[in-house]
Amino acid sequence: MRNIRLLIEYEGTNYSGWQTQENAISIQETMEDAIEQVTGERTRLIASGRTDGRVHALGQVANFFTNDKVIPGSNFKYPLNAKLPPDIKVLKSEDVDLEFHSRFNATKKKYRYVVYNGEIPRPIYRNFSYHVYGDLNIDEMIKSTKYFIGTHDFKSFMGPKSEVDTTIRTIYQMDITKNGELIEITVKGKSFLRHMIRIIVGTLVHVGLGKIKREDLNNIIQGRNRTLAGPTAPPQGLFLEKVYYD
Amino acid sequence: MRNIRLLIEYEGTNYSGWQTQENAISIQETMEDAIEQVTGERTRLIASGRTDGRVHALGQVANFFTNDKVIPGSNFKYPLNAKLPPDIKVLKSEDVDLEFHSRFNATKKKYRYVVYNGEIPRPIYRNFSYHVYGDLNIDEMIKSTKYFIGTHDFKSFMGPKSEVDTTIRTIYQMDITKNGELIEITVKGKSFLRHMIRIIVGTLVHVGLGKIKREDLNNIIQGRNRTLAGPTAPPQGLFLEKVYYD
Repeated sequence: MRNIRLLIEYEGTNYSGWQTQENAISIQETMEDAIEQVTGERTRLIASGRTDGRVHALGQVANFFTNDKVIPGSNFKYPLNAKLPPDIKVLKSEDVDLEFHSRFNATKKKYRYVVYNGEIPRPIYRNFSYHVYGDLNIDEMIKSTKYFIGTHDFKSFMGPKSEVDTTIRTIYQMDITKNGELIEITVKGKSFLRHMIRIIVGTLVHVGLGKIKREDLNNIIQGRNRTLAGPTAPPQGLFLEKVYYD
Repeated sequence: MRNIRLLIEYEGTNYSGWQTQENAISIQETMEDAIEQVTGERTRLIASGRTDGRVHALGQVANFFTNDKVIPGSNFKYPLNAKLPPDIKVLKSEDVDLEFHSRFNATKKKYRYVVYNGEIPRPIYRNFSYHVYGDLNIDEMIKSTKYFIGTHDFKSFMGPKSEVDTTIRTIYQMDITKNGELIEITVKGKSFLRHMIRIIVGTLVHVGLGKIKREDLNNIIQGRNRTLAGPTAPPQGLFLEKVYYD
């Protein structure tokens, strides 16, 4: 038995997300089909975490077990990529210890969220950003990041239908950069609640638009109530950029 | 009668190009449908030039005549955008002189071509770049641009089924920049032959790969024979960036 670890990039636009939902096909299913075509074995692909429909990944990590004795670990990407569609590709493959688990062993994750702040929604960015029209006060948004950094109860920033033991999470780093009409928000943390980053981004955008006051962020966090925070920013602006294994 | 000029952005991925071809729908037809829905008139939309299927535009210019007496020129973009699909949007609209003609009055055009130079074709860039695998000698490519700049007979760089009076064209400026694995080639000229930029890019990539020697470029140009130049780079790396009206 071997354990193969994959580094995966995908454009989530045409998928239901990592996991199968409703009628759309999932990334996981598409990848398990490709693995089956290559190894002849139906296996379960374990990812560092799920991503929602239309969310992208530049560096998703996943692993699977195989009885294959032929394909060198670093070469697994080639036959897999030959079977995968153009919007999912394996950037790297390798043999890892049988104990390695993509989700349990992940120590940090970095996400990027892209906001397009202009009047007309741009065709080129439409599947890769959140279109926000209106003057965004970037300085206020940048100053707001300090309220989120650290260990907090993020219950106000959790989407519906979540079952978790605790809503306490730790954010190590947040950065906001503006390049013309594109605003990029990066968030690095240990792990995240469902929709947490999208709700943080929606809240930051409301601060930028003046709909939420920066001074109220402490109360919004301490209130532990989803209705206090801003809206859930749409999925297509979100990229899973990197998963860390220390 | 009024003459309305539009600045248009589109992602060409799902279209046959500016003009209708084969079975796929065209940008032109989609826009003329939107104009008809807004003004009640079927009119012909005149563009600065055609773009091929899968080619994108960040700044296509087009104009149309209308008898509408209600909508201010600068506001025409709003009802048009409401009728247009997400991959085509009008960034700007304005009333112009009845004499203005998007094609005849264009004095220069700037195109951008994006090459992704890495081993694995990247999902995120797949509709917006040409995937080239192999070591590209960027210095050789940059030094090659001087052979193209100026007024030359570009017959070696003309696609099939072209009917033109002359194959002489003028290129004012060419720049090549490399940012990680992304290479951007910009070309500014008075006007271009069919597939001219894509064949120039295909030739530059062959120079970068060492398949064509830089010193042979003069002979390739002077040979006036399509078979001497490199391949036609694929359409999805090409962006019509700007049309100039001096």
